[in-house]
Amino acid sequence: MYDSLTSLRVVEASSFVASPLAGLYLAQMGAEVIRVDQIGGGPDFHRWPQTAAGASLYWEGLNKGKKSVALDLSRPDGRELAAALAAAPGENAGLFLTNYPTDGFLSHERLAARRPDLVTVRVMGQANGGPALDYTVNCAIGVPHITGPESLKDEPVNHVLPAWDLLAGAYAAFVMLALERNRRGTGLGQEARVPLMDVGIATIANLGQLAEVLTTGANRPRYGNDVFGCFGRDFISADGKRLMIVAITPRQWNALIKALDIASEIAAIELMREVSFAQNEGVRFQHRDALNPVVERAVAQRTAAELKASFDSLGCCWGPYQTMLEAAKDSMLVTDNPIFEAIVQTSGVTYPVPGAMTTIPQAARRSPLRAPRLGEHTDEILAEVLGLTSGAIGRLHDQGLVAAD
Amino acid sequence: MYDSLTSLRVVEASSFVASPLAGLYLAQMGAEVIRVDQIGGGPDFHRWPQTAAGASLYWEGLNKGKKSVALDLSRPDGRELAAALAAAPGENAGLFLTNYPTDGFLSHERLAARRPDLVTVRVMGQANGGPALDYTVNCAIGVPHITGPESLKDEPVNHVLPAWDLLAGAYAAFVMLALERNRRGTGLGQEARVPLMDVGIATIANLGQLAEVLTTGANRPRYGNDVFGCFGRDFISADGKRLMIVAITPRQWNALIKALDIASEIAAIELMREVSFAQNEGVRFQHRDALNPVVERAVAQRTAAELKASFDSLGCCWGPYQTMLEAAKDSMLVTDNPIFEAIVQTSGVTYPVPGAMTTIPQAARRSPLRAPRLGEHTDEILAEVLGLTSGAIGRLHDQGLVAAD
Repeated sequence: MYDSLTSLRVVEASSFVASPLAGLYLAQMGAEVIRVDQIGGGPDFHRWPQTAAGASLYWEGLNKGKKSVALDLSRPDGRELAAALAAAPGENAGLFLTNYPTDGFLSHERLAARRPDLVTVRVMGQANGGPALDYTVNCAIGVPHITGPESLKDEPVNHVLPAWDLLAGAYAAFVMLALERNRRGTGLGQEARVPLMDVGIATIANLGQLAEVLTTGANRPRYGNDVFGCFGRDFISADGKRLMIVAITPRQWNALIKALDIASEIAAIELMREVSFAQNEGVRFQHRDALNPVVERAVAQRTAAELKASFDSLGCCWGPYQTMLEAAKDSMLVTDNPIFEAIVQTSGVTYPVPGAMTTIPQAARRSPLRAPRLGEHTDEILAEVLGLTSGAIGRLHDQGLVAAD
Repeated sequence: MYDSLTSLRVVEASSFVASPLAGLYLAQMGAEVIRVDQIGGGPDFHRWPQTAAGASLYWEGLNKGKKSVALDLSRPDGRELAAALAAAPGENAGLFLTNYPTDGFLSHERLAARRPDLVTVRVMGQANGGPALDYTVNCAIGVPHITGPESLKDEPVNHVLPAWDLLAGAYAAFVMLALERNRRGTGLGQEARVPLMDVGIATIANLGQLAEVLTTGANRPRYGNDVFGCFGRDFISADGKRLMIVAITPRQWNALIKALDIASEIAAIELMREVSFAQNEGVRFQHRDALNPVVERAVAQRTAAELKASFDSLGCCWGPYQTMLEAAKDSMLVTDNPIFEAIVQTSGVTYPVPGAMTTIPQAARRSPLRAPRLGEHTDEILAEVLGLTSGAIGRLHDQGLVAAD
C-alpha cells in the first residue's frame, strides 16, 4: 500500500472481477474504499476458488484493504442508505464505483440528484446494458480462434485468464481519477461507462489487429506458441525443461545468437535466403521454419541451468515454463518479492498477498491489508459518513436493514 | 476523445505495448501526449501487423492522437533535448512515461535533478531491470499449463493476446494520475515502476489463484473451455454455430433453464444428486458432467437465430464465437458502435478506429485522431515547450540532431 490517494473516498457497490479490481487498485494507492455489500454477500461472495471451509479466496483477494458496510439492498430503506453513502458530501468524496445497472436505484441520474458533482464509474457488459462476461466478449471478437496449436484446427481455445476483466478494472480506476481531476477543475459531475465489450474490441483495434483483418480481408491463422511478427517460441532443454525464448529487438536477437553459439548457422540461412535477421524482427518470423530448428537443436544441447546462466548474463529475453505452484514458491516472483507479504487473510488462512503492483522507490510501501469481513465497518461508516447516532444505527439493526460483522 | 485531462502534458519515450498504451489512454482522455521518437523510429516502429506498403498498423494503433518529436537519441545533444522535454516546466507538465532503463540517460534521478517534482511512470520487464515480455511472464506464472483442452496434456498454450501488457498499460495510466494528484497536494515528485512480472504474479494472487495452489498444494487442472467454478462452456447449435454460454448468477441460471426449456431435466439431476443448482454456481461446476449434456442437447435442437432471440429476450449471458473478420464487420462491435469512426490513418489507409473505451453520457465524444508521422511535431514542440528560436531549431536540423516530418 502507498499513500498517494489517501484523501480520496470511493464508495464501491460491485461484484465479479473488473469493478472490485478497480476498487482494489484505488485502495492500494491509499484511497478509502467503502464497499456496500448485500447482507449475506453479493453474487460473487462465494466465488471459487474457496478454502476447505468454504471462504472465497477470490473475494478476499479482490477486496483487500477495503471497508464493508452490509445493507439489505432488497428493501427501499436499505437502498436509500446505499444511495446516501454513494452521494455523501466531501470534496474528496462523491466517487462511486459500480457494476450495477444504469437504470436501477444506483443510476447516475438518481444519485446525481442528491449530489450533482458525483463522479460515477460503471463497469458494464454491453454498452446497451445487455449482459456480457469476459468469456462472451473474448469469443465474439475472435481471440479463441487464433489461440492454441494448429493441431486444434477449428476448435476455439478460451482464456482461463479473464484478460478483459483485468484490463477493464485497471482502466476503470484510471477513468475514476481522470473524472475526479476534471471535477476539481470544473466542478462537473459525470458518469464514465466502461463496457467490457468496448474494452475488448477497442483493444483489438488499438493493437492493429482489427485493421489487419480489414486490410488483408483474411483472419490471422493460428501460430501455436510462436510469437507473431518476431522470433519467439517455446523450446526444450537437454534436461527436458521448457523455456519461452523471444527476440524482438536487435539486442535480444544478437544476445540469443551469442548465448547459443549459432552465428554460423544463422549466417548460412541469411546467405541462402538472401535476408538479414538482425535489424528486422518480421523477417525472423517469416523464416521461422529455418530458424526454429537451429534454436531447437542448440537449446536441446544445453541444460536449463546452463541456458539460464548464459541467457541472463547476455540479457536474452526468456522465461521458464512453470506451474502456478512452482510460481507460488519462486523466490523472485513471490517468496523474496518485496510486493508480497504473508498475512492472515479474512478466511483465517495465512498466505503471501501482494500490495500495489507498482513500486515507488521514494515512498514507503506499507503492508498489504486483509479483506473486510462482511459488514465489519457498518456502524463506523454509518456514523462517520452519514452522521447517524448510535440510537439510529441501533434501530437500523433492529429492522434488519443493516448488519455488522 | 474526451476533454477530461486537457490541461495535462505527458512526455512519452516508449515502445512496445504497455507504455504506449498508457499514453494512448491519457491522450484519449484529452492529455497532450508528446512522444520522443528516435529519428527513423524506435524498436517497435515497424512491428507487425503492417500494411502492404510496410507501415505498422500496430504502431499507428497505439499512438493515435499523440505528438511526435524525432531526435537522435544516440548522441549526447539529442539525449539532452529529450531530457529537457521530459523535465520541462509547467504545473500540469513534468509527467514522464517510459519503458527506458532505470539507470540510463532518462533515469528518474537524472531528470529529477532538472525538475525535482517530476513524476515518472516506468514500465519494466522484471523489477530488477532484467528483460521480460508478456510471453516470458505468462509462462513463468503458470497460465499456459491451464489454458486449452485437456487433450493437449502437458503442452502449454501461450496467449496470443498480450494480456499482461494490456493490464500494465492501463495500470500505468492510473498510476500516472495517482502520482500527479499526490504531487498537487504535496509538491512531491516520484517514480512509479510497473514491472510486467509483478503485474502478472500480483494479478494471479488478486484473483485468489495463488492462494488456491498454496492451500490445496496442487495445480488447477485444465478444464478446456469450461469456466472454472460456475456453469459455462461452448456449445453448438442445430445449424452448427458455436456459442459461449455462461451462468454465474441465479438470474442467469434461471434464464438459461427457461430459454432452453430444461427445467424438468435439471430438477431430475438435482433430485438424483441431492443438490440445488439455483443458488450455488460452484455446485453447477461440480456437476457439469450431468449439466453439460442436457444443455448440449437443448442447444443442438435450436438454430443460432432461435437461441439468440430467446437468450436476449430472457437476459441469458452468452456470446457467439466469431472470427476477428466477422467481429470487424459486426454492427454492435464496430460498424454501428459509436466509439468507432473510420478515419484516414497515418499509413494512408482508411479504417474504423476507436476513441476512448469509456463513454461519458454527459460529455461530447470527439473524433478519434490518427497517429503522428515521425517528427511531425518536432519544430512546434521545440519552440513551444523548450522555447527554441527558429534559428536554433534550424541549427539542430543542420546537425542532424532532430528531424521534422
